[in-house]
Amino acid sequence: MRVDGRHADELRPITITKHFIKHAEGSVLMETGDTKVICTVSVEDKVPPFLRGQGQGWVTAEYAMIPRATDTRTQREAQKGKLTGRTMEIQRLIGRSLRAVIDLKDLGERTLWIDCDVIQADGGTRTAAITGSFVAVVEALATLKQRGVLKKFPVKDYLAATSVGILDGNVALDLCYAEDSKAEVDCNVVMTGRRDLVEVQGTGESAVFSRAQLSEMLDVAERGIANLVEQQKLVFGEWNGWIAAAGALK
Amino acid sequence: MRVDGRHADELRPITITKHFIKHAEGSVLMETGDTKVICTVSVEDKVPPFLRGQGQGWVTAEYAMIPRATDTRTQREAQKGKLTGRTMEIQRLIGRSLRAVIDLKDLGERTLWIDCDVIQADGGTRTAAITGSFVAVVEALATLKQRGVLKKFPVKDYLAATSVGILDGNVALDLCYAEDSKAEVDCNVVMTGRRDLVEVQGTGESAVFSRAQLSEMLDVAERGIANLVEQQKLVFGEWNGWIAAAGALK
Amino acid sequence: MRVDGRHADELRPITITKHFIKHAEGSVLMETGDTKVICTVSVEDKVPPFLRGQGQGWVTAEYAMIPRATDTRTQREAQKGKLTGRTMEIQRLIGRSLRAVIDLKDLGERTLWIDCDVIQADGGTRTAAITGSFVAVVEALATLKQRGVLKKFPVKDYLAATSVGILDGNVALDLCYAEDSKAEVDCNVVMTGRRDLVEVQGTGESAVFSRAQLSEMLDVAERGIANLVEQQKLVFGEWNGWIAAAGALK
Amino acid sequence: MRVDGRHADELRPITITKHFIKHAEGSVLMETGDTKVICTVSVEDKVPPFLRGQGQGWVTAEYAMIPRATDTRTQREAQKGKLTGRTMEIQRLIGRSLRAVIDLKDLGERTLWIDCDVIQADGGTRTAAITGSFVAVVEALATLKQRGVLKKFPVKDYLAATSVGILDGNVALDLCYAEDSKAEVDCNVVMTGRRDLVEVQGTGESAVFSRAQLSEMLDVAERGIANLVEQQKLVFGEWNGWIAAAGALK
Amino acid sequence: MRVDGRHADELRPITITKHFIKHAEGSVLMETGDTKVICTVSVEDKVPPFLRGQGQGWVTAEYAMIPRATDTRTQREAQKGKLTGRTMEIQRLIGRSLRAVIDLKDLGERTLWIDCDVIQADGGTRTAAITGSFVAVVEALATLKQRGVLKKFPVKDYLAATSVGILDGNVALDLCYAEDSKAEVDCNVVMTGRRDLVEVQGTGESAVFSRAQLSEMLDVAERGIANLVEQQKLVFGEWNGWIAAAGALK
Amino acid sequence: MRVDGRHADELRPITITKHFIKHAEGSVLMETGDTKVICTVSVEDKVPPFLRGQGQGWVTAEYAMIPRATDTRTQREAQKGKLTGRTMEIQRLIGRSLRAVIDLKDLGERTLWIDCDVIQADGGTRTAAITGSFVAVVEALATLKQRGVLKKFPVKDYLAATSVGILDGNVALDLCYAEDSKAEVDCNVVMTGRRDLVEVQGTGESAVFSRAQLSEMLDVAERGIANLVEQQKLVFGEWNGWIAAAGALK
Repeated sequence: MRVDGRHADELRPITITKHFIKHAEGSVLMETGDTKVICTVSVEDKVPPFLRGQGQGWVTAEYAMIPRATDTRTQREAQKGKLTGRTMEIQRLIGRSLRAVIDLKDLGERTLWIDCDVIQADGGTRTAAITGSFVAVVEALATLKQRGVLKKFPVKDYLAATSVGILDGNVALDLCYAEDSKAEVDCNVVMTGRRDLVEVQGTGESAVFSRAQLSEMLDVAERGIANLVEQQKLVFGEWNGWIAAAGALK
Repeated sequence: MRVDGRHADELRPITITKHFIKHAEGSVLMETGDTKVICTVSVEDKVPPFLRGQGQGWVTAEYAMIPRATDTRTQREAQKGKLTGRTMEIQRLIGRSLRAVIDLKDLGERTLWIDCDVIQADGGTRTAAITGSFVAVVEALATLKQRGVLKKFPVKDYLAATSVGILDGNVALDLCYAEDSKAEVDCNVVMTGRRDLVEVQGTGESAVFSRAQLSEMLDVAERGIANLVEQQKLVFGEWNGWIAAAGALK
Repeated sequence: MRVDGRHADELRPITITKHFIKHAEGSVLMETGDTKVICTVSVEDKVPPFLRGQGQGWVTAEYAMIPRATDTRTQREAQKGKLTGRTMEIQRLIGRSLRAVIDLKDLGERTLWIDCDVIQADGGTRTAAITGSFVAVVEALATLKQRGVLKKFPVKDYLAATSVGILDGNVALDLCYAEDSKAEVDCNVVMTGRRDLVEVQGTGESAVFSRAQLSEMLDVAERGIANLVEQQKLVFGEWNGWIAAAGALK
Repeated sequence: MRVDGRHADELRPITITKHFIKHAEGSVLMETGDTKVICTVSVEDKVPPFLRGQGQGWVTAEYAMIPRATDTRTQREAQKGKLTGRTMEIQRLIGRSLRAVIDLKDLGERTLWIDCDVIQADGGTRTAAITGSFVAVVEALATLKQRGVLKKFPVKDYLAATSVGILDGNVALDLCYAEDSKAEVDCNVVMTGRRDLVEVQGTGESAVFSRAQLSEMLDVAERGIANLVEQQKLVFGEWNGWIAAAGALK
Repeated sequence: MRVDGRHADELRPITITKHFIKHAEGSVLMETGDTKVICTVSVEDKVPPFLRGQGQGWVTAEYAMIPRATDTRTQREAQKGKLTGRTMEIQRLIGRSLRAVIDLKDLGERTLWIDCDVIQADGGTRTAAITGSFVAVVEALATLKQRGVLKKFPVKDYLAATSVGILDGNVALDLCYAEDSKAEVDCNVVMTGRRDLVEVQGTGESAVFSRAQLSEMLDVAERGIANLVEQQKLVFGEWNGWIAAAGALK
Repeated sequence: MRVDGRHADELRPITITKHFIKHAEGSVLMETGDTKVICTVSVEDKVPPFLRGQGQGWVTAEYAMIPRATDTRTQREAQKGKLTGRTMEIQRLIGRSLRAVIDLKDLGERTLWIDCDVIQADGGTRTAAITGSFVAVVEALATLKQRGVLKKFPVKDYLAATSVGILDGNVALDLCYAEDSKAEVDCNVVMTGRRDLVEVQGTGESAVFSRAQLSEMLDVAERGIANLVEQQKLVFGEWNGWIAAAGALK
């Protein structure tokens, strides 16, 4: 039995709130248990220098936590004057993951700036950020489509992420902070709606792990991600058809 | 008639949500029209070096906006590696204002870290941050009092703030962003429950102003702040008695 | 009786030395009692990116103190690698104040860089910087006018600043450091030659203050500023006529 | 057939040079094909603040490239004043990997500083850094053991790493730069001598990948790592016995 | 004939003003032609960590220019957030030079902070800074001696510096900016009152130079420095005796 | 007798390895005793902004040490986020020295980026960097010449550097670290193949020095540099003729 009574392969309750910030083209409040992340997407009509004139777009991400998102106050990175390695790693992961399901040619010469700001943290903030950002990206692109600026809808597939770990020797899905801080092995998995892998990051925090254990973790993660994609579909409405159509061509 | 139909001396609708972030000793979601600020208060059991051993506490504040709190995306200060002058000015103002109503001796050798994170901006973020932080500070100190760590409740008076400006030659209270960006004169006013001034910052943005205009702005601001303090009282419950008792001794 | 024998509404002795640094278009040594500030103005024939192509100029200011301007040595900001909040606040105030009396259209597409370097500090450095910078700006613009590069003289009015505070319950003008460090309330006031307010910043440092006290402080500040403007007129010679002519059109 | 004529599951030639820098307790020049990394280990007789007084040691790593290690010159991070996200990610990976095979209790209250400096890069620098650092760590700990400062030899198992990817749809081991820049999927694998996983990082760079493909990549990586461990054993001499003894107790 | 009519071996006019900044233990306005440097010395009753407990003192220096000390405005290093290489080089030179004539044992466990702030630059700022700092150091130490905190006067010899260069093939002393910017060779020389060398830095800026030319430059520099030391003696009064006494013991 | 048995005027053994890093246009491993420096030269087909459109090239240098090049580990400058004064001073010296023998007009509008990375330090790293960089520059320019992009070979003369000092009152050439740390006077000398001086930096570290001692140091340095140039000639082959031809025209 887990600390919050869940089964080993059970996700925490999920809430996805669209249109959360009035200014942004896309914005979502993503809640996974007590983890709460605001994901906004801003559309800029130009691309970074290394892509100029190549007829394609770009997707990039930034990640932060408000200081008291955590149990004890964390110093603000803007005060320190630099990003921590953890932040850099997470924002690179978010951007890379989203680029896997966006057709950058169909996006055209524009940049999607994803901002993930954690307002309350209880484990799994990076995977919640990916799952929520995908919704915000679809919302932003739907906005562009409705304004008639996109010829093709550039989202090829669904995208969601979760964590899975080994706790006291057993595989457990979607670790909350109390579990995460004790887990022997921690694995973040990003998958598409078609169950292809986008990213697997498995780390022995205080123990090594076998190929068999990795396989078991991926089985459980896959079921969790399928569940997350179902919940994305529920909030998408007509956008589901657009993704289906865009994906069918690939 | 104003852009949103308000009277010249009318505040925007206010919502104060206590206990907004589960980890913090005090936390508030402060909403003033479309301006939304998360204010958290963290208590640390030590003081900065310049106060050590003097038997008194300290109150300090930090302020930030998420990048898409604003109409167009604002670059993250943590990415730039430094704070803007505007941020520094605002967080100094918040800290100074709160210290005016806290008895630092009665607080004891501990620091209150106030964090104001704007998640949606529509003008008046600094004054909303002050009004909301005061509630979060009272919540945090009530938590300390309930744990028995405070001998006396150190809050001497209520504290709230609002902006007032001159727009097309007329005084207007609590400017939203559309108004603020066109105002000839902008004035931020911080007052106590007893209607004493804590801070007045009047600035001719595109015009100078007369002593008479300043006086008129302060009249209107005073009524707005009285209104804000009434709303603080509504959410405080028994804490009102504690403030009254602490203030009576001063 | 004040620490240096002055009356409550008496300024410290003022000395304004024009043409102080040979390289600069305008440069002044401004002395207010023992406070000494070098104000230089550099003219650059371009404007910041946000103003390009709009047919108007810009005025910006920077402020610093040499390390031993103060009673004990202050660490150099260049060594720390960043500006303090106090410096940022002061340089924003100086730039904003000067822009209030300069017609940016008449200035044309050029930038005035104001540099205020405090070589000896004894209270009131920011207000001395404003009063001295105004003289240096007029000198720089007179240089431009004499070179024939300005069609209209862009200075609409005089500008000066002073501090006023409440000390042991009494209002006192132009606080020296010994007074400033003990004052209950501190107020910086920037006014024009026509006695319009440009900026009022009143702060309860260790006490709150009433509307009546604010009014009394402003009365005293106004008389002090009138006095400062008289002294500016004495060093201006023919430039007085140019300001009068430019202001008459507004 | 691969660009350099290798089989799909063939490593590039490996050279491990011990005692490469005269000052360091442990130092190795690790060569994998044209990738050359200097790995040094410095022993410090104290631990970071978060570990003080807990009777255990710490292992941390830093990574850099000289500017012309790469095909075109890369700007020095010391000149930019900050580390890139890539560098942070790599040095966190190296430190974490090494900690997996070091018994921090047996290390005692000391820190191993691992420095990996790439002097020539041709793909696989992070995995070469891990494989080489392990040798340098063993050398440094052998030095400590010979000085009599270690009660037990704290290395529990061998450690090596390699990359594996999918190139034109086929799995390929130990990608050189020409391959890496075209690979659809890139996977870095860190394993122990007992073939346990320490870290798996699989990334779809321009394509997603299936569970079956991940499994095939791990099979090939495992054979490559077994080969690398054999080469470590060849340079270790009597140290092999010490590792065997330390590992037997776990 | 030189640009300002001087002979090849002639210094520009020198003015040394003691007691220039009221707060500092020692302070000098050093004027060499149009080059003007404020040199202050602050005494701190502790030493840097690397010297603690060794019964000796330390002398360190910082150097800056106000932005419009130069012909065109130079960006403030505090704004850039870092020191230029030129500044670092100069402040290391000043500190090293002063340490050559101060007996650090006799100074005791205290630090002399030398601050050289150039308010007007016309070539030779670093050498003027050294010559002026020496006077400010003697003034500060005289202050300490008069307060009775120094057992022995720790100044062993006089110290002064000048530049010398090759201009159109001819040696010229004490280059002003117009000369310095055209010189083929530039040489800064620091010497003591006994004519010993402390530092020689000869640089071929746009040409190389022979041993014979170096020798001729040093001859001229030596005469210039002798002249500067004479002028130091004129402002020192009774301090000359103290230096003589301290130096006699060495 | 010196610590390593050398005569007073004897250099340590020299090894110059060309083509050391496969990617760079020029690259050298320079070994002077136990001091080992990798010097690479990268050619960029543009010049810094201050030289654009002037038909000439530029030569600039950067210098660093790997952390364990030194006896105890030195913190990485990239981690600190800024360069030390020592590094800045050295890299300015290297760039300036190389520019003295390169005809920047003949180089054309391109920049030579010299990178000196010390992998093992035992005194004399800056002079080894200059001597080695010269070889790498010649190699890079030979590469350009062979590609036909240079009309004239722009190297006018040989360039080498060494250190010389006063140790226990005696002049000693090419100080190793054990000597350098005890030397009373330290002097770095850069000369051309024609025995002209490019740079002389003599510093009294713990003592002053006479004109006669300086002269003796320069005599010994000159013989050492002549020896270094001989060794450069041995590795240059046909490039010697190109330098001779280019120099003959000057």
